[in-house]
Amino acid sequence: MPLTLATEVRVRYAETDRMGIVYYANYLVWCEVGRVEFMRALGGSYADLEAQGYGLAVAEATVRYLAPARFDDPVRIETTLVGVRSRAVTFDYVISHAETGTRFATAHTALVSIDSSGRPTALPPAFRALLDGAR
Amino acid sequence: MPLTLATEVRVRYAETDRMGIVYYANYLVWCEVGRVEFMRALGGSYADLEAQGYGLAVAEATVRYLAPARFDDPVRIETTLVGVRSRAVTFDYVISHAETGTRFATAHTALVSIDSSGRPTALPPAFRALLDGAR
Amino acid sequence: MPLTLATEVRVRYAETDRMGIVYYANYLVWCEVGRVEFMRALGGSYADLEAQGYGLAVAEATVRYLAPARFDDPVRIETTLVGVRSRAVTFDYVISHAETGTRFATAHTALVSIDSSGRPTALPPAFRALLDGAR
Amino acid sequence: MPLTLATEVRVRYAETDRMGIVYYANYLVWCEVGRVEFMRALGGSYADLEAQGYGLAVAEATVRYLAPARFDDPVRIETTLVGVRSRAVTFDYVISHAETGTRFATAHTALVSIDSSGRPTALPPAFRALLDGAR
Repeated sequence: MPLTLATEVRVRYAETDRMGIVYYANYLVWCEVGRVEFMRALGGSYADLEAQGYGLAVAEATVRYLAPARFDDPVRIETTLVGVRSRAVTFDYVISHAETGTRFATAHTALVSIDSSGRPTALPPAFRALLDGAR
Repeated sequence: MPLTLATEVRVRYAETDRMGIVYYANYLVWCEVGRVEFMRALGGSYADLEAQGYGLAVAEATVRYLAPARFDDPVRIETTLVGVRSRAVTFDYVISHAETGTRFATAHTALVSIDSSGRPTALPPAFRALLDGAR
Repeated sequence: MPLTLATEVRVRYAETDRMGIVYYANYLVWCEVGRVEFMRALGGSYADLEAQGYGLAVAEATVRYLAPARFDDPVRIETTLVGVRSRAVTFDYVISHAETGTRFATAHTALVSIDSSGRPTALPPAFRALLDGAR
Repeated sequence: MPLTLATEVRVRYAETDRMGIVYYANYLVWCEVGRVEFMRALGGSYADLEAQGYGLAVAEATVRYLAPARFDDPVRIETTLVGVRSRAVTFDYVISHAETGTRFATAHTALVSIDSSGRPTALPPAFRALLDGAR
């Protein structure tokens, strides 16, 4: 069964725009926070993966904006691993108000496993095993 | 025939990440630059639209990442208006190296016309007419 | 005695640059996080202050960079209120590694109390009293 | 006589905050744009400096905020080299409205020459000579 990891952030003033709401690109930053915490919870930190000479490059990202998040809102990011293949990992995200549950956005990202020179490569086996255990 | 407007930016150091390439969320910032310049080229600046009490809120955004842009790269953003309805506007973007033509990314955004309190509303007629003339 | 409030953030990938370290402007974002949490700890949230029609605009900011913070580092932001006057508030910040104590930066910001149209104005008395109690 | 190089940017929506003005940290991003263009104008691009294994790390930054820049404002960044030593370079900046001349901010940054492992090192002689020629 797919594992979902919830993490929280609070909306920073820097993340708002003059419409008074969170600027749309910043939801992708929260997705990054969500998947970094997801990997840490599995026991395989993304910083360690990079220290081993690997990386995960985003190949595609989609965000659907449902309601605007505002300054100081407590935000819950729920990250679910929805696919693992030799060279690719996909995550889904639900981003909502941590107290009221209002959904701000849903998102999906597809990532490709790369080596330190940016070429696609298979995930290291130990890391792959951690991800396989979360599905 | 759909109008395409090309504008250029140069990759800022602030836009890179420790992978040595442009951080993935920043492509959405460039899409914003692209559509703002698109509207200006039509004669209907986005700042003016907001001054009239209207706004365009992003409802959905998708980016496909094809090749990494790097610090100091000259970047061309080609913005095409692909749909106009009473309350919705959609744009496609092709983001590429301004000299070599290497495609960095393609993107798509759907925007909803809102009033100053954030409620969906029809685009002001004069602005709608400008957009209709660009298709 | 001046009150110091410590809050923590974790370095986001978005905050790094291609030098592999945190981009220098982002320390000012952390200062903002520090002073927002400082005000919340006092019982006077900055969001509430804005809801009353006031704001604090930064008039001057200085950062001294001592050692680079890196991706995934746990960061402690210690915020101290160093001055309160009718229309001005100044904060000092010490930004360090939350576990090793390595100092990443020190910073200072001077803020001016403004009304909703951006004009300097005296702080609301209740908010001023909270700040005075923290010195 | 010190050389001043002027470059222009236009305020992006992403750079504004919910106060309706440019978020204070973003002025440091513009300073970076200013000094990159300054070095390019001298004939010594910063990207090339990094390709040779050198970098310039910011040691100190100060910004004085004089008037708020707003969305879509054309912004002029005037960058002046005010000091060059073996391992240190300092720049001053004047940031203003490109049409009205209203001063938004002045800034100062001190940078330290580092090698690719982050250790202070003397600037490469050819680069140093370019900078010396601009004073």
